[in-house]
Amino acid sequence: MFSLPNKVTIIEVGPRDGLQNEAKLVPAEKKLEFIHALQEAGIEEMELTSFVSPKWVPQMSDSKEIVSAVQKTGRQFVLTPNEKGIASALDAGAQAVAVFVGVSDAFNKKNINKTTAESMETLKPLVLKLKQDGVFVRACISTAFYCPFEGAVMPDDTVSLCRQFTEWGIDELSVADTIGMASPKESYDLFSQLAEAFPSVMLTAHFHDTRKMAIANIYAALQAGISRFDSSAGGLGGCPFAPGATGNVATEDVVNMLHRLGIETGIDLDQLCAAVEKIEPYVSHPIATGMYTLFKNRK
Amino acid sequence: MFSLPNKVTIIEVGPRDGLQNEAKLVPAEKKLEFIHALQEAGIEEMELTSFVSPKWVPQMSDSKEIVSAVQKTGRQFVLTPNEKGIASALDAGAQAVAVFVGVSDAFNKKNINKTTAESMETLKPLVLKLKQDGVFVRACISTAFYCPFEGAVMPDDTVSLCRQFTEWGIDELSVADTIGMASPKESYDLFSQLAEAFPSVMLTAHFHDTRKMAIANIYAALQAGISRFDSSAGGLGGCPFAPGATGNVATEDVVNMLHRLGIETGIDLDQLCAAVEKIEPYVSHPIATGMYTLFKNRK
Repeated sequence: MFSLPNKVTIIEVGPRDGLQNEAKLVPAEKKLEFIHALQEAGIEEMELTSFVSPKWVPQMSDSKEIVSAVQKTGRQFVLTPNEKGIASALDAGAQAVAVFVGVSDAFNKKNINKTTAESMETLKPLVLKLKQDGVFVRACISTAFYCPFEGAVMPDDTVSLCRQFTEWGIDELSVADTIGMASPKESYDLFSQLAEAFPSVMLTAHFHDTRKMAIANIYAALQAGISRFDSSAGGLGGCPFAPGATGNVATEDVVNMLHRLGIETGIDLDQLCAAVEKIEPYVSHPIATGMYTLFKNRK
Repeated sequence: MFSLPNKVTIIEVGPRDGLQNEAKLVPAEKKLEFIHALQEAGIEEMELTSFVSPKWVPQMSDSKEIVSAVQKTGRQFVLTPNEKGIASALDAGAQAVAVFVGVSDAFNKKNINKTTAESMETLKPLVLKLKQDGVFVRACISTAFYCPFEGAVMPDDTVSLCRQFTEWGIDELSVADTIGMASPKESYDLFSQLAEAFPSVMLTAHFHDTRKMAIANIYAALQAGISRFDSSAGGLGGCPFAPGATGNVATEDVVNMLHRLGIETGIDLDQLCAAVEKIEPYVSHPIATGMYTLFKNRK
């Protein structure tokens, strides 16, 4: 009845989105072991780190070291908030950059102290310059469904924000249900609308598992033709500025469902769980995702 | 694109399936508080308890007290393994009975020391007698997708087992992915097949969240037209005879998704979480379902 994609690309966000809120600093060496283990498991696209102020996100103060040390096969993203971050990222050797903005004004203000329009005004020349220089640019669109402060976000507002990016020549749109509140129907509807509106841009879905709907939302997005998903090994991370936004969807649980649906990912599930095992001692909570729990019980 | 049902019935299995494996005995009085809180939240169908040997399942040794004390509005099931159990259940005032069998021989043998065919032979006169006496009978079909010992189960084997029950006049088939291994596609396919084969029987889907696919499987079953789901408040329970079968899908997370899909359940989510709060001190692990965690964080 439904045609699902044959192949899906996972964009692993654990090393950046996952670790950034860990209170205790993870040594760069351990991050690199985690990143390399993820790459060995077959992860080809990853958010490695971010070039943000170490004052705000001390966990990411080793970003230069991380970017320099990581093999640049596949697509390795660094998140950048502004011109300075972009310059440092490119300086360190980054070949793919992620920028971010929230559809909701209230969320964007809380997050980066600008309205959405102000953010877009700042981003425009930066994105245009990056594209001129041949850098792959990913735009992370947060609160694309719901805002923790303003409630429901209009799908048309998300689509018009995305449209601005496509007009600047963006390569990828990563569209997020930041507080994990969207239903599978809303996932299907918005991603169908985006796929129709932007057929030539890479469309990526980013779900949080706050209300345990992330895997169902991914299934619904697959039905809408989406074949790129952000996820975080071990389900690490969340968002410090979004109350209740605990938990990125776990890469190992997403990959397992995809494989059980007969969809190729190029990822080895056991090696992926072994990568999670490497980082578990350095995070503040036990990791209890579905596939990682089974992996540990088998030992 | 998909038409989903407007209304869904939840069959709450927490008091029976959820509590039966708790090592520490929960006082009958506390179980009754839990059951009454669930009923107040709007749960109309429930597996209350089981009439099994107290030697095997000591937690259910108060079944007579439970059945006698609970209000019989709605449909309140008791699980019975044999003739003696059925007699005791009816004696205690039960008006709806659940019987069970596994599609997989290996699982059925491990569970009740009989092949599937032997179980069916024993069940036939019992079900026929119950129907003669006007008792509502639910058949719980385990390992309908995968067996922990034999692997994949053929959909046709599940359908033929179900067919035998329908020939005996069964009222409801509760079809379970006992080890939480089915994909949403398998859920959709089997439930479509069952719905087509048995249009006049109540068809219920029972998913375990072992691999975090339960909510997605419920979404897929909704797309196949299923409108009855077993679930367990707080995600309590699992199956002692199925390795890795940890975790029934949590009622509060199912109800939340249904409501977000615009589907009526008649259940108040806050009252449901308040019922979970009543039982939490008596179970062996903290309850960390999506909606219950948000409920506690709001306090």
